[in-house]
Amino acid sequence: MSESTTQSQRPATAADGLAGRAAALDAADPLGPVRDRFELVAGEVYLDGNSLGPPTTQVMERLSDVVGREWGRMGIRSWDGSGWWTAPERIGDRVGALVGAAPGQVVVGDSTSVNVFKALVAAVRMAPEGRDEILVDAATFPTDGYIAESAARMTGSTIRAVPAEEIGAAAGDRTAVALVNHVDYRSGRLHDLPSVTAALHAAGALAVWDLCHSAGALPVALDDDGVDLAVGCTYKYLNGGPGSPAYLYVRRELQPRFDSPLPGWNSHADPFGMATAYAPGDGAVRGRVGTPEILSLLALDSALDAWDGVSVAGVRAKSLALTDFFLECVSALVPPGRVETVTPLPHAERGSQVSLRCENSGEVMNALIARGVIGDHRRPDVLRFGFTPLYTRFADALHAARVLADVLEGTP
Amino acid sequence: MSESTTQSQRPATAADGLAGRAAALDAADPLGPVRDRFELVAGEVYLDGNSLGPPTTQVMERLSDVVGREWGRMGIRSWDGSGWWTAPERIGDRVGALVGAAPGQVVVGDSTSVNVFKALVAAVRMAPEGRDEILVDAATFPTDGYIAESAARMTGSTIRAVPAEEIGAAAGDRTAVALVNHVDYRSGRLHDLPSVTAALHAAGALAVWDLCHSAGALPVALDDDGVDLAVGCTYKYLNGGPGSPAYLYVRRELQPRFDSPLPGWNSHADPFGMATAYAPGDGAVRGRVGTPEILSLLALDSALDAWDGVSVAGVRAKSLALTDFFLECVSALVPPGRVETVTPLPHAERGSQVSLRCENSGEVMNALIARGVIGDHRRPDVLRFGFTPLYTRFADALHAARVLADVLEGTP
Repeated sequence: MSESTTQSQRPATAADGLAGRAAALDAADPLGPVRDRFELVAGEVYLDGNSLGPPTTQVMERLSDVVGREWGRMGIRSWDGSGWWTAPERIGDRVGALVGAAPGQVVVGDSTSVNVFKALVAAVRMAPEGRDEILVDAATFPTDGYIAESAARMTGSTIRAVPAEEIGAAAGDRTAVALVNHVDYRSGRLHDLPSVTAALHAAGALAVWDLCHSAGALPVALDDDGVDLAVGCTYKYLNGGPGSPAYLYVRRELQPRFDSPLPGWNSHADPFGMATAYAPGDGAVRGRVGTPEILSLLALDSALDAWDGVSVAGVRAKSLALTDFFLECVSALVPPGRVETVTPLPHAERGSQVSLRCENSGEVMNALIARGVIGDHRRPDVLRFGFTPLYTRFADALHAARVLADVLEGTP
Repeated sequence: MSESTTQSQRPATAADGLAGRAAALDAADPLGPVRDRFELVAGEVYLDGNSLGPPTTQVMERLSDVVGREWGRMGIRSWDGSGWWTAPERIGDRVGALVGAAPGQVVVGDSTSVNVFKALVAAVRMAPEGRDEILVDAATFPTDGYIAESAARMTGSTIRAVPAEEIGAAAGDRTAVALVNHVDYRSGRLHDLPSVTAALHAAGALAVWDLCHSAGALPVALDDDGVDLAVGCTYKYLNGGPGSPAYLYVRRELQPRFDSPLPGWNSHADPFGMATAYAPGDGAVRGRVGTPEILSLLALDSALDAWDGVSVAGVRAKSLALTDFFLECVSALVPPGRVETVTPLPHAERGSQVSLRCENSGEVMNALIARGVIGDHRRPDVLRFGFTPLYTRFADALHAARVLADVLEGTP
């Protein structure tokens, strides 16, 4: 990655100091070698892994085997012989290991939106008589709110939007369930999962967490924190590929009461019995619906190999170090007053992205992308930079801040 | 494909006559060259395309481009730059062309089960006040029935199971909608879509058709026959790959009233506006929910290339000729009394599979598969053989009947 030539116009000390720091941090990074597990574009700094993680080096080989041998040669026999039929649970357990769920509680399939629907309707059906209110995080990624609205309408519940940090306190006698984002998609703010969950439970309500922006970026302890249900996508920090299937966690004790609004044949106790009457299977399989999209599902399976030997605690430590360093670089290099940090500074409130408010953010992001710094833009005025410790280097954080500074100075 | 040595034990005339007929039919088959578009296993007769179609020769190259260039190099920019975002509608139009739907009415995504839920709930919501009954095909593939039950429960409707051939007559003043299979998955029976649809309309009810076992096997005229909504899978006769995404047809005139129970952000009028309030987009996009599983979706896109220059009418003609010929071969070669034909003999009632009732059908199918004739088995006693005109030859039909005869005679 070539350094910007415009750096020579600045005082040598600041830039040199940061460059030296970046080099030292990268040299000492225990996750450094994991970067080689990914296919990255030379000369580009990819800071959009909070939206779409890059492919691993192995995924194409795996897909080639799935298409050529499993589908092409074994054909229909692969449903048993290649483990396709049970892949949603098997891969669910792999995802579960990254979010603090013991085996048998996570199933992979469908989109996050569809899983939000299953989770909320099932939660309302578990709630005691008289509890007919669904709380939603007021700043939620929109689809969660739209789906919650539909779940409320279809279960005769009401819905109330509350800021995530107040949602525990807002739960009352009529609250059946609350749907909360672990990390806010726009600001990158991390919410306090253990204490919000405890407050919801104290109020007699269930907690459904959306882990889209936290799974794979920071420790999640679903079992230990007593979370009831959770959903998340796998194409961000889990690198499963575009639109790779989402997942649903149903706490083991609640599984016998999990009454799905989408009781497809894949969730049946005896799917090939072809019985006219529905009878749900036991365990996580209750969260399944129809035939899983095997190519996307097995690409995810392959992508999860990138986590071999990696601890989520180590990822979190590097993530915080990366976002701290990026903020420091931005502060040192970007002209004063041009950006405002939206992401909270306290570590306990920070996810794995940095969001900066900026005028003309759409144009600024286009200029960054044109110069090989790939982040994204959320209307009206937010630049988002995702830091993904499996493959992002401290030198990348510095480079991104330099290019941002150059763009904002209007230098080419 | 080597001929069975046991044939020499039979009267030479019958076998020779059938072999000569098969050769002549294959030589005259205008679809013969289309077989080269598929990756087929040498020495195997694949008669399970009604469950999982084989890969085309191009699909791996396409996936390689999607993973390497679109995902790997363009990354997140592919949502626009590679047309990922609009792929569900674009590919929906390609599927639509095979089922008689003009562009703008079909969207690809989710599983068949999830699409049945969308279609039935939306249909009930369109129905006039007082119409609160859902009719379902009594012999339906089970998932349709399970999901219909859930749709009824969640919309305050009742449900009634009626044989498909009586469903038009059964519709009454309270019927909101009927869900019917175009071809029965077990028997291969083709139902009369135009007349059932007309009878439902005459009774003031909407018609939702499940096209899983007809799309790509025979002409479907959704627009011309006035079908209201339809669903189907793409991994059978459309060869999209294991679990490739399903589709939803919403007749153009009904789209403004299509009120989805799964209003995910992909169906929003301005998805990247990130508005708190849901506002549905116009057109087929209303049937979308969450982020589509791009790898599976684009494998389907590639698979549809196998239809270039192929007319569904030609496919139907060959399909009927193939199933006629197979039934003739079975009749000539299989010991009397060992199988009973479940599939209706009249062409107007036949799909593209032949189902044979047979004792010990599970063991018989295992023996067939061990000898390279790949069909499947539906409990308790049905052997299913799918005939897929794009790649199945008349010689394959004869070979399958010969091997079946051998297996049933107990000869190795």
